[in-house]
Formats: sequence, structure tokens, C-alpha cells
Amino acid sequence: MIVSIIGVGLIGGSLALGLKDEKFSNHIIGVDNNENNLDKALELNIIDEKTTLYDAVRKSDLIIVAIPVNSSLEVIKTILDQPNIADKIIIDMGSTKENIAQSINNHINRKSFVASHPIAGTENSGPESAFASLFNNKVAIICDKELSDIKKVETVENIYKLLKMKVVYMDSKSHDIHLAYVSHLSHISSFALGITVLDKEKDESNIFNLAGSGFESTVRLAKSSPDMWNPIFKQNSKNISDALGEYIKQLEKFKYCIDQNQYSESFELMKNANNIRRVLDGMIKK
Amino acid sequence: MIVSIIGVGLIGGSLALGLKDEKFSNHIIGVDNNENNLDKALELNIIDEKTTLYDAVRKSDLIIVAIPVNSSLEVIKTILDQPNIADKIIIDMGSTKENIAQSINNHINRKSFVASHPIAGTENSGPESAFASLFNNKVAIICDKELSDIKKVETVENIYKLLKMKVVYMDSKSHDIHLAYVSHLSHISSFALGITVLDKEKDESNIFNLAGSGFESTVRLAKSSPDMWNPIFKQNSKNISDALGEYIKQLEKFKYCIDQNQYSESFELMKNANNIRRVLDGMIKK
Repeated sequence: MIVSIIGVGLIGGSLALGLKDEKFSNHIIGVDNNENNLDKALELNIIDEKTTLYDAVRKSDLIIVAIPVNSSLEVIKTILDQPNIADKIIIDMGSTKENIAQSINNHINRKSFVASHPIAGTENSGPESAFASLFNNKVAIICDKELSDIKKVETVENIYKLLKMKVVYMDSKSHDIHLAYVSHLSHISSFALGITVLDKEKDESNIFNLAGSGFESTVRLAKSSPDMWNPIFKQNSKNISDALGEYIKQLEKFKYCIDQNQYSESFELMKNANNIRRVLDGMIKK
Repeated sequence: MIVSIIGVGLIGGSLALGLKDEKFSNHIIGVDNNENNLDKALELNIIDEKTTLYDAVRKSDLIIVAIPVNSSLEVIKTILDQPNIADKIIIDMGSTKENIAQSINNHINRKSFVASHPIAGTENSGPESAFASLFNNKVAIICDKELSDIKKVETVENIYKLLKMKVVYMDSKSHDIHLAYVSHLSHISSFALGITVLDKEKDESNIFNLAGSGFESTVRLAKSSPDMWNPIFKQNSKNISDALGEYIKQLEKFKYCIDQNQYSESFELMKNANNIRRVLDGMIKK
């Protein structure tokens, strides 16, 4: 199968490497606005050819869109407008789904598109961060399955299974609500923590010396790319604002307990938070 | 050297294992309020003998206090009141320093005490979580060095160096301010995130399925023990309240940008947060 990857960054690049490893494709075409990324991806054997979006779509059986969600909103529509799309499969990898769904649900070629979101990533970006096993033992969500051609959905399911992923299904709207809480909020909590500590600790050697693995783990996502995350915040603004509001309320409860010397209440808050252990243990086993 | 460990949990247990591995001590005495922990520590060869606090102090050259900071406040005073303390060294491992300093700085045996804080830990607790390499390549802080006997400080420095730690020095007050930002705040951010997501996702299978490694890393500290953390919040309440206030302000800035559609501002916030990469890279190299 000839595969095009639109956006040869961490996600697109890792997918290309995984599909090559699994012999799903022996010719992968790369498309990217950033010429340096394309050259780097060629050099790293992530892709075998670089070309334009139109040429890539014309030549491919499968087109994978792995770019920031503001760009994918436009690019997916452009792809669906091309000739012979009924014979091709288009999938996206984005972290928001409802806006994209709304923009193409009435498109004549909607059935060729499979809305998906592999829940995998690191705080790094670019083709040099890509690695074949990024998706192993992770979850891939397929959204609004009933709007896509059933055979094309099967092909996408097979790709994710080849990459050792577990496939789950949900509608776009639910996807965006859940992801606001279990992913987008974590990123903002981490960005805000990074800023708070950098603001306070003007002498960064204090952070070097005094921060332990706990700080490192809670602040890791503050390294994430604003180019990728800003469009996610914009497209999922309502849900993220709700999640942030809830999060701030919980933090204010802690602050109130500390300010008012109400330590039996803060103990109960922490006991409640400890229930996350059961959930995380479940994740590790999944 | 005969060593007593008061509190055979993650920190005390790991220290005992490390000191045995380095042949610093071949007889370690354990003291703990929790008889199960003592038996478990004996069974795991973390300690060689269990006894009472008084008996342990009498028999030991070095007494290491590794219990929650509310208890250590009392226990350190009790130890300093025992006979022949001038010949012994007492060190503590706690995450807050100013309260302890205030309570014993005028004690006749103050010079036998070395205030310290090895910055190491995991979200787990109890002797079964202990491991000898916990402290390797981490930082140990010694506070108010000038108030301790110089020879005793040297012994403590040697212990931390044996455990492959880097030793830094500061006064108790500065310690508590810095730690509020680079450690205590991370724990509250994580506890609050855990509660927010558990509250929203009543069906926990959604968290299992949808949460990725980002969520896992930001929420990991929510598994931490309330018995350990509540006394830290209490003893460092002023600094933690300040840090929490600053953190909430940063989160509110993000919320405002999202609610008011001000995405060039949120982009700048994230760019600023990205500077944490330089600091974390520094930590890894240290």
C-alpha cells in the first residue's frame, strides 16, 4: 500500500517507522510545510519520497494527516475535494475531533475519512523525535465510526492493531469532553507549573539543585510545543475552560484548608486523590 | 558504626539498604510505631534488630530520623534530651526545616544534630518500597551547617557522598521557601488533578482507556501518602499558600486567554513555560 504522511513530526514520523517495521508499506511519501523536516525525515529513512500535498494524494492509497489541528481542519477538506477520493482512505491523528467532524460531515466524500486519535506522544516534536514503538500498548480512538465506509474503518483498525494498539470507539463530542480532562488539562497544569517556578526561581541553579523527580514528572509536559497545543486549546475551548475551572476550584480547596488550618479536610482531599492509584494500576495492566 | 533508623519506610529503609551496601554499617537498628513495618523490615534484611526509641538511641553512634515531619518535631527533641548525646550524631530527613530549627536551636545538645533533607522519594511508601539506589545522583541539602559540630557535619557529608549524592547548603528558612515551589506545589497540583479527573470521570474505564503517559506523569504524585504530606503542608503553610496562589494565578491567565479568545497570549505563556526544558536538561546532566 502506498502511504502518504502529511506532517512528518513525532506522530507522523513514528507512524511511518511503525508501518515500515510491520511491512504494511514499503513506500512512504512525506509532505510537510517545513522543508528541513522533510529532508531530515528522508535522511532518517522515515519517508522514501517528498512531494506536494496534491501529488501525494494522487499517488497514495492511504493518506495520514498528522499536523496541528488548526491546519488539519483545512487540509482534510482540501484532500476530500481531490479526484478519486472514494478509492482512498484518509485518517487524521488530531487531539480534537468535534470541529473537524462539523466541518466535513456533509462532504460528499465523508465516507473516505476515518476520524481517529492515537493516544500517544511525548513532550518532544519533529522527525528526529520519532520512534517506531511510540504507539505500542497504547489506545487508538476511532470517532463517529458509522459515518465512514466500513471497509475503510477495518483497514484503519488493522493498522492500529499492527501497531499493537487497543482500539476504542466514541462520538466526536464525547471524545473532546473526555480528552479535555484526561489530557488537555494535564498540559495546562504543567505549563502553569513551569511558569510559576521559573518566575519565582530567578536563579535557575536553585531549580537544578532542589527539584526532584516529582517536580520533573509534573512539569515535563511544559516542554510541549505551543504550535501544537494552542490550536487544541482553541478548538476545544469550552471543554478545556470547564476542566480548568474545576481544577482551579480543587486547588482553591487545598489553599483554603492550608490558610484556615483545616488539616483534617486536606487529609480527606488527599485520601480521595489517592484513588487515582487504582486507575493508574489499571492503565499499566491494559 | 551502629546506626538506628527511626521510621523504616521508603526513606529510612532505602537509607539502611544503601548504608549496608556501602559497608558503612553492619548493624542497623530499626524503630517504628508500626510493628508490621518493623517485622517487614527485618524480613527484608533492611534492619538487623528492632527495639524502642530509648534503647536504640542508647546503643547507636548515628541516629537517623525518617518519619513524617509532625512526629520528627517531637522525636528529635526527645532524642536530644537523652544521656551522652554529645557523642552521637542525629540527622533528620524531613521535607520542612524551619519549624524543627526553631524548636531545637537553643537545645544544649543542638551541635549533635545535623539538619538535612535528601531530595529523593517516590510516590510509594513503606519498607517494601525501599531500594538501595534511591539516593544515587540526587541532591542532599544540609541546613544551618554552622549550628552543628563540624566533625559531625563531615560524617553526614561522607554518608551522602557514599550514597552518590551531591551535597548543597542553605539556611532552614530558604530551604522551606524553595521547596514550597519545586516540590510541595507539585504534589498539590497532582493531588488536585487526580480529584478533578476522578470527579468528572465517574466511569473510570474512560480514564483507563483515554489517559496517556502525559496524564500519568502529571498525576503520579497524587498517589502520595496523606500521612506524610499533611504535616508538610502544615509546617510550611505560609510558603505553600504563596506558591499555590501564584500557581492559581497562572492557571487563571490560561483560562482567561481561552475564554477571551486571546490565543497569541496563550502562545506566549507556553513559550515562556518551554524554558523549563533548559532547566530539566540541566538537572539530568547534574
